[in-house]
Amino acid sequence: MNTSAVPFSELEFENRLTATKNSMLARGLDVLVVTEPSNMYYLTGYDAWSFYTPQAVLVAQDWSRPVALLRGQDVNGGKLTTFLNESEIIGYPDHYVQNPDVHFMEFVADYLKQYGQDKKVVGIEADSYFCSARSASVLTACLPDGSVKDADLLVNWVRSVKSDAEIAYMREAAKITEKTILQAIDKIQPGVRQADIAAEIYATQTAGVDGMAGEYSAIAPLMPTGVGTSCPHVMWRDGVFKNNTCTTVEVSGVRRRYHAPQTRTLFLGKPDDKVRRTTLAVMEGIEAVMRTAKEGVTAGEVSHAWNSTIEKHGVYKNSRCGYSIGIGYPPDWGERTISFRDIDKTVLTENVTMHFMPGIWFDDWGIAITESIRITKTGVECLCDTPRELYIKD
Amino acid sequence: MNTSAVPFSELEFENRLTATKNSMLARGLDVLVVTEPSNMYYLTGYDAWSFYTPQAVLVAQDWSRPVALLRGQDVNGGKLTTFLNESEIIGYPDHYVQNPDVHFMEFVADYLKQYGQDKKVVGIEADSYFCSARSASVLTACLPDGSVKDADLLVNWVRSVKSDAEIAYMREAAKITEKTILQAIDKIQPGVRQADIAAEIYATQTAGVDGMAGEYSAIAPLMPTGVGTSCPHVMWRDGVFKNNTCTTVEVSGVRRRYHAPQTRTLFLGKPDDKVRRTTLAVMEGIEAVMRTAKEGVTAGEVSHAWNSTIEKHGVYKNSRCGYSIGIGYPPDWGERTISFRDIDKTVLTENVTMHFMPGIWFDDWGIAITESIRITKTGVECLCDTPRELYIKD
Repeated sequence: MNTSAVPFSELEFENRLTATKNSMLARGLDVLVVTEPSNMYYLTGYDAWSFYTPQAVLVAQDWSRPVALLRGQDVNGGKLTTFLNESEIIGYPDHYVQNPDVHFMEFVADYLKQYGQDKKVVGIEADSYFCSARSASVLTACLPDGSVKDADLLVNWVRSVKSDAEIAYMREAAKITEKTILQAIDKIQPGVRQADIAAEIYATQTAGVDGMAGEYSAIAPLMPTGVGTSCPHVMWRDGVFKNNTCTTVEVSGVRRRYHAPQTRTLFLGKPDDKVRRTTLAVMEGIEAVMRTAKEGVTAGEVSHAWNSTIEKHGVYKNSRCGYSIGIGYPPDWGERTISFRDIDKTVLTENVTMHFMPGIWFDDWGIAITESIRITKTGVECLCDTPRELYIKD
Repeated sequence: MNTSAVPFSELEFENRLTATKNSMLARGLDVLVVTEPSNMYYLTGYDAWSFYTPQAVLVAQDWSRPVALLRGQDVNGGKLTTFLNESEIIGYPDHYVQNPDVHFMEFVADYLKQYGQDKKVVGIEADSYFCSARSASVLTACLPDGSVKDADLLVNWVRSVKSDAEIAYMREAAKITEKTILQAIDKIQPGVRQADIAAEIYATQTAGVDGMAGEYSAIAPLMPTGVGTSCPHVMWRDGVFKNNTCTTVEVSGVRRRYHAPQTRTLFLGKPDDKVRRTTLAVMEGIEAVMRTAKEGVTAGEVSHAWNSTIEKHGVYKNSRCGYSIGIGYPPDWGERTISFRDIDKTVLTENVTMHFMPGIWFDDWGIAITESIRITKTGVECLCDTPRELYIKD
């Protein structure tokens, strides 16, 4: 019934499974209970907004293929979006949903028992949004002869280096990002309602470009304005854009769940000295990173290039300036693995993809000019071609 | 610095805190670590897309006000959106974010120690998306003289009965829902791209109505079509709408994070007998629920009214037909408390709000006609006025 194209070849899914099993072997795991939607998608293609109720993909060293355990009403979604055979998609009864008397992890444990996997070492994604405290305690209680271990980020780390097919999706996403950001900046004017720009962003992001449909983004469009730019994450309001303020527009196009986020800052009016000087520092910091990042360099070295450059200008940033990206489901388009910060010693390799996010948030304003980048053997590919500057309308 | 209006009066926040503390008392809890974004918003007004990194609102029997622990860069967002004083918004250092060497719950435990709350009984929202297995184990390890207990849904249950101010927001949201659904149905035609309808939905939902801006919805627009209607949660694709198929459009308008979701089904072409007969059963089932639901009736009795009616027509639904609604953040607009299903014995009271969601998903098609409802002393208020019918374009 796979009428809808699965996003990757069966060979690519096999490679992912092999890499996952190798990593499990290195950590002494026999079974992995994958509950993070991005990781479920990565291993099977499963793609539906069903992650608000419990679900999992199981990987076992003994099994040649993964198995998906989905809510009964979502089984057809599994058939439509994954490379799995029907027998590999198991529906669970609806009374496991949001019922204090039973828990989905009892169903998982029963399934593992049924296939002789209950006396094994079972990994869970213990710090993901989709592996609750109770999930862990119920699974542990239901597998008295097994052992439940923290295997958080195991699949996320496998995901950190992208295949050519993944990079192709990210480049498509980047084209949508570019168009979305530029159209938003074009339409923002003093007196224009914030919600109308949000609507414009959503419409462009979703309609897509060049006949390629856009998808929903793992993070809603961010467009703080005025004092709102003092923090990255407040949402649009009933109000309008005003003169003599900054607005930071952060969006991502999405293709087959792959993201390429970007931020640009727009100033309505004539930027004062403080804004001009900060912009100069930010642009120099970005250039320093573009010269530094490449295969063989650590994430910490990239962060150092950024910080040491802006600090010469008396500008300081006390948070990480980037994170790995790829597949995204709410609440995040980040992969939660590599961060650009001084303490991160990860050595970058070709086809690691990062959102280089050097946003700076002061007490009453902020600026963010960012790039989704692919690490290459010799440097950096910026996925978007959006002109890199402080946009000014005065 | 509270330049942006906080969504509720200080008195309403005080009432919420009192109700929360009473419920804590009944469960023997001294402290509650609230990590679900909807509950954080309910208790403080905090509203930002920062929930992809750890954060919490702490409630203690000893304290007269809640305290928010936010990522450093989000503190300004706390100042802009909550009723809290600056001293009640604590920023944590950025190295607690996605760093395998330290965990946010160490910061929480340190804060509790600093204020003499570390030898107490501490509740956590143990089955929420935002309380990971590791969160629980780290907090437990860091409070050796205290006791960490599962207090999942404590605030969610307090939320289940709405105030007049909340109902007002939900009615506003419902007006946006109505317009969004009707515009989508108006524009869907054979040959129209699915993504263009998704773009239309987003634009209407966000621009809002009557000068009221819409907000992002906790669930992306759902509009499965053709065989996609055999499951509720698959997303739009690159393709177009086709003749002789159903499409189910499920969206919600949002005001101040309050949702009023609804689904309508559109048939392109001439519905066959199967579709007509099922629609009849569904419409009768809905009428039965509208006659049954009111204060004093149980959720299970509502479910029984639905099931017993459709089963007379030979139509069966093996999943719950509704859930409580109100505030929503991704991944869900449901409150995770009351469900319309036979085993749920919750007695409905005035101002309980539910998404009555009697969707039916067959092997290769489906139909969903739903209502967001408010329980009254004598019956039901449908929040949306959208005409209730199978929409047909032939």
